[in-house]
Amino acid sequence: MAENDDISVRGLAKLEDTCRKIQTMEIRGAGRIARAAAGALKEYAGVQQVEDLHRFHEEMGRAADILLATRPTAVSLSNAVGMVMRIQASDVARARSAIMENADRFIENSLRAVDRIGEIGSKRIRSGETILTHCNSEAALSIIARAHRDGKEIDVIATESRPRMQGLLTIGFLDELGVPTELIVDSAVRSAMNDVDAVVVGADVITGNGSLVNKIGTSQIALFAHEARTPFIVAAETYKFSPATIMGELVEIEERPAEEVLKDASLYRHVRVRNPAFDVTPHQYIDVICTEAGAIPPEMSYVIIKERLGWELTD
Amino acid sequence: MAENDDISVRGLAKLEDTCRKIQTMEIRGAGRIARAAAGALKEYAGVQQVEDLHRFHEEMGRAADILLATRPTAVSLSNAVGMVMRIQASDVARARSAIMENADRFIENSLRAVDRIGEIGSKRIRSGETILTHCNSEAALSIIARAHRDGKEIDVIATESRPRMQGLLTIGFLDELGVPTELIVDSAVRSAMNDVDAVVVGADVITGNGSLVNKIGTSQIALFAHEARTPFIVAAETYKFSPATIMGELVEIEERPAEEVLKDASLYRHVRVRNPAFDVTPHQYIDVICTEAGAIPPEMSYVIIKERLGWELTD
Amino acid sequence: MAENDDISVRGLAKLEDTCRKIQTMEIRGAGRIARAAAGALKEYAGVQQVEDLHRFHEEMGRAADILLATRPTAVSLSNAVGMVMRIQASDVARARSAIMENADRFIENSLRAVDRIGEIGSKRIRSGETILTHCNSEAALSIIARAHRDGKEIDVIATESRPRMQGLLTIGFLDELGVPTELIVDSAVRSAMNDVDAVVVGADVITGNGSLVNKIGTSQIALFAHEARTPFIVAAETYKFSPATIMGELVEIEERPAEEVLKDASLYRHVRVRNPAFDVTPHQYIDVICTEAGAIPPEMSYVIIKERLGWELTD
Amino acid sequence: MAENDDISVRGLAKLEDTCRKIQTMEIRGAGRIARAAAGALKEYAGVQQVEDLHRFHEEMGRAADILLATRPTAVSLSNAVGMVMRIQASDVARARSAIMENADRFIENSLRAVDRIGEIGSKRIRSGETILTHCNSEAALSIIARAHRDGKEIDVIATESRPRMQGLLTIGFLDELGVPTELIVDSAVRSAMNDVDAVVVGADVITGNGSLVNKIGTSQIALFAHEARTPFIVAAETYKFSPATIMGELVEIEERPAEEVLKDASLYRHVRVRNPAFDVTPHQYIDVICTEAGAIPPEMSYVIIKERLGWELTD
Amino acid sequence: MAENDDISVRGLAKLEDTCRKIQTMEIRGAGRIARAAAGALKEYAGVQQVEDLHRFHEEMGRAADILLATRPTAVSLSNAVGMVMRIQASDVARARSAIMENADRFIENSLRAVDRIGEIGSKRIRSGETILTHCNSEAALSIIARAHRDGKEIDVIATESRPRMQGLLTIGFLDELGVPTELIVDSAVRSAMNDVDAVVVGADVITGNGSLVNKIGTSQIALFAHEARTPFIVAAETYKFSPATIMGELVEIEERPAEEVLKDASLYRHVRVRNPAFDVTPHQYIDVICTEAGAIPPEMSYVIIKERLGWELTD
Amino acid sequence: MAENDDISVRGLAKLEDTCRKIQTMEIRGAGRIARAAAGALKEYAGVQQVEDLHRFHEEMGRAADILLATRPTAVSLSNAVGMVMRIQASDVARARSAIMENADRFIENSLRAVDRIGEIGSKRIRSGETILTHCNSEAALSIIARAHRDGKEIDVIATESRPRMQGLLTIGFLDELGVPTELIVDSAVRSAMNDVDAVVVGADVITGNGSLVNKIGTSQIALFAHEARTPFIVAAETYKFSPATIMGELVEIEERPAEEVLKDASLYRHVRVRNPAFDVTPHQYIDVICTEAGAIPPEMSYVIIKERLGWELTD
Repeated sequence: MAENDDISVRGLAKLEDTCRKIQTMEIRGAGRIARAAAGALKEYAGVQQVEDLHRFHEEMGRAADILLATRPTAVSLSNAVGMVMRIQASDVARARSAIMENADRFIENSLRAVDRIGEIGSKRIRSGETILTHCNSEAALSIIARAHRDGKEIDVIATESRPRMQGLLTIGFLDELGVPTELIVDSAVRSAMNDVDAVVVGADVITGNGSLVNKIGTSQIALFAHEARTPFIVAAETYKFSPATIMGELVEIEERPAEEVLKDASLYRHVRVRNPAFDVTPHQYIDVICTEAGAIPPEMSYVIIKERLGWELTD
Repeated sequence: MAENDDISVRGLAKLEDTCRKIQTMEIRGAGRIARAAAGALKEYAGVQQVEDLHRFHEEMGRAADILLATRPTAVSLSNAVGMVMRIQASDVARARSAIMENADRFIENSLRAVDRIGEIGSKRIRSGETILTHCNSEAALSIIARAHRDGKEIDVIATESRPRMQGLLTIGFLDELGVPTELIVDSAVRSAMNDVDAVVVGADVITGNGSLVNKIGTSQIALFAHEARTPFIVAAETYKFSPATIMGELVEIEERPAEEVLKDASLYRHVRVRNPAFDVTPHQYIDVICTEAGAIPPEMSYVIIKERLGWELTD
Repeated sequence: MAENDDISVRGLAKLEDTCRKIQTMEIRGAGRIARAAAGALKEYAGVQQVEDLHRFHEEMGRAADILLATRPTAVSLSNAVGMVMRIQASDVARARSAIMENADRFIENSLRAVDRIGEIGSKRIRSGETILTHCNSEAALSIIARAHRDGKEIDVIATESRPRMQGLLTIGFLDELGVPTELIVDSAVRSAMNDVDAVVVGADVITGNGSLVNKIGTSQIALFAHEARTPFIVAAETYKFSPATIMGELVEIEERPAEEVLKDASLYRHVRVRNPAFDVTPHQYIDVICTEAGAIPPEMSYVIIKERLGWELTD
Repeated sequence: MAENDDISVRGLAKLEDTCRKIQTMEIRGAGRIARAAAGALKEYAGVQQVEDLHRFHEEMGRAADILLATRPTAVSLSNAVGMVMRIQASDVARARSAIMENADRFIENSLRAVDRIGEIGSKRIRSGETILTHCNSEAALSIIARAHRDGKEIDVIATESRPRMQGLLTIGFLDELGVPTELIVDSAVRSAMNDVDAVVVGADVITGNGSLVNKIGTSQIALFAHEARTPFIVAAETYKFSPATIMGELVEIEERPAEEVLKDASLYRHVRVRNPAFDVTPHQYIDVICTEAGAIPPEMSYVIIKERLGWELTD
Repeated sequence: MAENDDISVRGLAKLEDTCRKIQTMEIRGAGRIARAAAGALKEYAGVQQVEDLHRFHEEMGRAADILLATRPTAVSLSNAVGMVMRIQASDVARARSAIMENADRFIENSLRAVDRIGEIGSKRIRSGETILTHCNSEAALSIIARAHRDGKEIDVIATESRPRMQGLLTIGFLDELGVPTELIVDSAVRSAMNDVDAVVVGADVITGNGSLVNKIGTSQIALFAHEARTPFIVAAETYKFSPATIMGELVEIEERPAEEVLKDASLYRHVRVRNPAFDVTPHQYIDVICTEAGAIPPEMSYVIIKERLGWELTD
Repeated sequence: MAENDDISVRGLAKLEDTCRKIQTMEIRGAGRIARAAAGALKEYAGVQQVEDLHRFHEEMGRAADILLATRPTAVSLSNAVGMVMRIQASDVARARSAIMENADRFIENSLRAVDRIGEIGSKRIRSGETILTHCNSEAALSIIARAHRDGKEIDVIATESRPRMQGLLTIGFLDELGVPTELIVDSAVRSAMNDVDAVVVGADVITGNGSLVNKIGTSQIALFAHEARTPFIVAAETYKFSPATIMGELVEIEERPAEEVLKDASLYRHVRVRNPAFDVTPHQYIDVICTEAGAIPPEMSYVIIKERLGWELTD
């Protein structure tokens, strides 16, 4: 028993280490967070020595809660935990191995999804086109990279993405690939839009009615694309879709620290900073969402939630 | 003659000093540049000793050309020079004093225009409203300051205005006035728009068909205001209106240095920066232009050009 | 047999009494009508003494037809009757009890649906918001009441809803709840829209392509919300969705008596009244439909029809 | 002198009687009010016996102020008074007769303007068309009546125009003319719009940027017309145009008594009535404004103000 | 064996004859091509004498490939071949008869679908309406013809449909039916739109996100309908829906010969012809798609693809 | 006298010859017709031998009426005649020479206007751009030709312009200039719009509220340009502006012969052709009108009418 406890403690220590990394954004990006959570649950299940199934479920539930608390509104984290924990087993051994298999499958699927989205989405890009992207989305860049690797001659326009300047990561990535890229400030998107053939962005959350929650500024770009009749393409792994929104939940928009925008707000008496991390793009401005399971109109979000996330309309 | 020449040289030296300050942006802001040019012409006329009227006109024309070359596309500079030089005189003495009077009048009018715009524009702002502004426009802030001084309780949302961050000047100005102000990144404007009761911005140029050329990002904000049925108000002295655009001239959009956006572009092989200083807001997105002569719809731009700048439709 | 007949007659008499109340609008509101019809069928099934299954089905079919004829185009009535009558049974006893169970379940579900819609829909309302509603919808008011009960500080703007002035019922209901409410004429909705954070209305019918048939004036409000980027939320029990529209049927808009609008039309020789009871809101103006099974985009109407009403695409 | 005073008192008594009738709406309608004010000024000038020109101007100024105070925001009243009082005279006799002539001319012009608008506006109506009108505008009905008198077969749809039900006046007027007319509730306008070939409404105020201030509900109808590509025509005498709005003044929207909407608001604790008399239609929704001087686009409002009301852009 | 070969050759000869007719457009129209392909596969299966199941599958696969190559991007051809070839059989006899049954069913269903679409779609047309149609679609005309046969008094406006002038086929068809029809040039559609109550067109392809690929000019008409709030109805058999587009495939727009537009392009040195056969109508402009399985909003395209074409979201 | 009469007859004969050529479209194009009319009036004035001024005016009035009757709705014809006839003279000799000078000036101005429009309009075209044009407008092509002559590398897309196929004239003209040109059918404009940087078209009439009456199909193209945020530029000599429309006159749209569209309509019993020559483009879709006097927004139409055509707002 002592040994068991020790192991359990060790398991907990590692789990908490993962949680810390997520909170401090050492691990960041919706996909990487989700995979880290799945891995942590697998590991935690592996070291649990309890023999009582109920006790095992309790332990795992505790671990899941700790993980979920790190970023309470991240739907990819919540979907990952939910998928790993969805098991039916008659004893601890079977439960453990089911969780470990679920975790492996989730991680593998997540890794494959980015490639698959690249494959599906890149079919919509023609040689000679200019693509605008915002922030630094793994899935969106997968589409661009695949089009480039397939020999299509494309140009990219990348936004700075204030305040965190993820655009610099994006131009670094594209520069290494050898994709001709222009960097613009976020205020210059509408100006540049007449030269753009398609916009490709990622997703933090897709809601049940097809709205997109993504990096602040995304909804602005969607409106410019709409105004200029330019296709607006979202790249989103299916675990970015939010079942809870179907039950009416609103996605809470995280408010980030003022310091990201203004070094020293204490210099001012009447000034404060508003720094929302995300904004909401209405589905009317989205042409297509490329998932690893296919390219769908945003209004079909529920079908993804039902068929891929195993969620049902009930009352 | 030697004396005359000396004086002329001294006149030229001072003129060229003013030009240098405009070019290096030591003197900046459309209004200040225009007033500096008017002042320089006055001074230059004052020191000219030639007695031949034709020779005098030649000298003054040369001075005007030197001034115009500092910022060839700035319509307020060109209007200022045109207004100062519009004289009819039968001898040098009368010509000199006409120019000097024109210059004085232009400077005085320009200074008064900002106040007058504040007075006219602030009537459109009600107590309790939230005003969004972009960049750091003297005329736009005059409207906000006047509303505040008149005891209206207003809040302001100010954008950063990348890449030059003029938003910091704006929050500094408003902080000193004691106006409650929020600073947001340029990507957060659409997000914030539902809390905004009116947008107030300045103008670099108003074209003959009522389009607005202003700080990059302005046209984006205009579109968000239009989408959300929020009034979009432009503050513009009448010398910001461009007669040349009626003859078909397009306003050239200045391309600024890459370094303003990206410290060291040489780190990248395939990346370049696009850094337009201005964008064009179509008149359909503008509710009203507040000038010192009244609040007009953008489509009435020609009337301003005709009645205030003395320009006529001819062929 | 005589006894049976008597009972049958008594059954018929009660059924016809319910029908009369529906026709005279003593029983009114889509939900109450549907529940009354279900109850009448249950009661009618309970008193049928026939022993032949075929005869039983005939009798029940007759009762259903009589009920349906009272308001031939009310989809909630038709869905209620359809749901109650959907049975498979090998003898009369089983058929009777299946119908009675169906009726009980429908009534219970209907009652619960209003609560559930309130729970789901109220999540979309934040404290401090102003909600506009039209007419007097049980489901829409359930959302508002739930938000209020949950301690959210909300204000409501209610329309008169000419010609029947159901707005007076709405303000009475909200006054009792203690919700601060403003009453406006139907012509003042666009004027008031800039103060509105969300519109919440009910539904008479949701068609297969997501259009909303509701109280005259609803489509006007939807357009104002759309113009001002204000969310437009529909509260609709799933039995308001119309399977028949998928087969191309148009929902007929009931034309109400002239007297509702003009006391004495006979005073005029050239004037007539047009008094449609409903109008049609296109799905493009609807942000979300809150049903008891979840909040869906209008384009997902078919999924509700299929999964909740058991209807299939066939040819 | 005593006699003079008496007369002056009598003059004042009559003037005040006119003011009372305007305030109590015994005299109502922008045109009738304006003509009554002109007539009162004429009469008042006629009975003034002072011989000192300065004193005469003081007296007349006092009378003008009294009249203006009756409906402080009615632009037609203010324009009428301004037009009558615009004189230059070297003695009282000439001043008196100038005022009296101005008053006569204003009244005559006002009467003729309605006819002229009918003539000009009716050219835009073709036989076979259906016209929708709102409230009860003299000028709008002049267009419809003229088209009818010219033998064009037209149908009219008239709104109730809650809360004051001016639609009943309109259908009475049209019934007498023999124009086939349909009465609808204000909520049914969008529903009816597909049958409408043109909308014709009147105006209370036209602002300097071409916006229309008119009976509550007008802006709703303009939006429906815009949505359905139906021409929206405004009938407005030139004295409805507001010079003050060019100097930034906002037109204050009169808030009418709650009793017009809700008989007894005291029955409710949490309910209040909002009853704005007018709303504002943006110029983008207006196709043409028919004045007695011609049919102009709303953006040309300033030209009317300048050429017809003698107002200039100045600073 | 020799005999077998001969037969096989004969089978191939007939198959190739069908292919030639499709390529030369002797057989044309999506439905007719699809049925011809199904018939050819049936016939080809019928004459195959091989006894090895694997060999049989190879033969049939070869035949399918030859057919598909005739119009590589025609989704109805590809769906037809796919549906006929979808079999599971343990021996050649069963396989052969399964293919032959599939082919018969496809042909029968295809023929019935046009009737069924006419039945469903015509419910949306009211007596007294004017319908505009473009090109010469079997399914669209089925709706019009059915409405006419049901005794509804309808008028039709038909476009020329340059460059192939299929409008002449349409007016011939309607003339024979006795439907009053107006012929207009393609440039006159917007002009005529105010007289139109509904637009009805066919479909070449419906994509996974509900876009319509149809005869060049269709998207123009959809935009005019949208601008004027006129319903835009698409008539499309379910085998026009494209599963491949869900996997990101773009529908390639066929470029037709220059000679269709310009007799002799060789007369010009600097002129070339662009002659796309189709254009793409975004789903936002489509009100409803009438299929033989029901009338759906375009966003439900995936449901058709899944439920009717047996395709699933997978990765 | 006999001689006079003879001369008069000869004058009349020549005048009538010009009229015949206009009617048969031997002389065609708004500019050429206007110049021919001016020339005919000059010639007619030159041969009149009457000595009585009143009689001379009568004769000239008769000639003007005959000319006007050839194309009663052509505003350029009516403006030309009006401009030539606008004289004040005390005797026949002076009247004659005034008319002859007016005619010379009109012709010269008209010829120069096309060049001047080319000069002004071409400033809005940048090297590398693709321009779409419709029909065969002298003024629109002047803009394109000037841009080409100025060394700008431009491509043109020209529509067929059914039914008269004036697009063939346009591609012939551009081919000779050496401008790379693509010919498309009228149905392919929206498809091509994403490749277009600006649309340039001519004008038959500009109305007082800035609407454009031009070749059928123009309003369609304007809508596509609007949808895609592409500038829509109108080239129009000032004598295309219609003073009469300010007085409410609607421009009658000429209905052309059915044979232009359908060779033999007698083959059909239920088919008729609708063949409007022009359509109306609302001013909201027009970015700028390039006249020889400057580039103006359409809403400034009245200013052109007033300042260039000498027309005033009066009642």
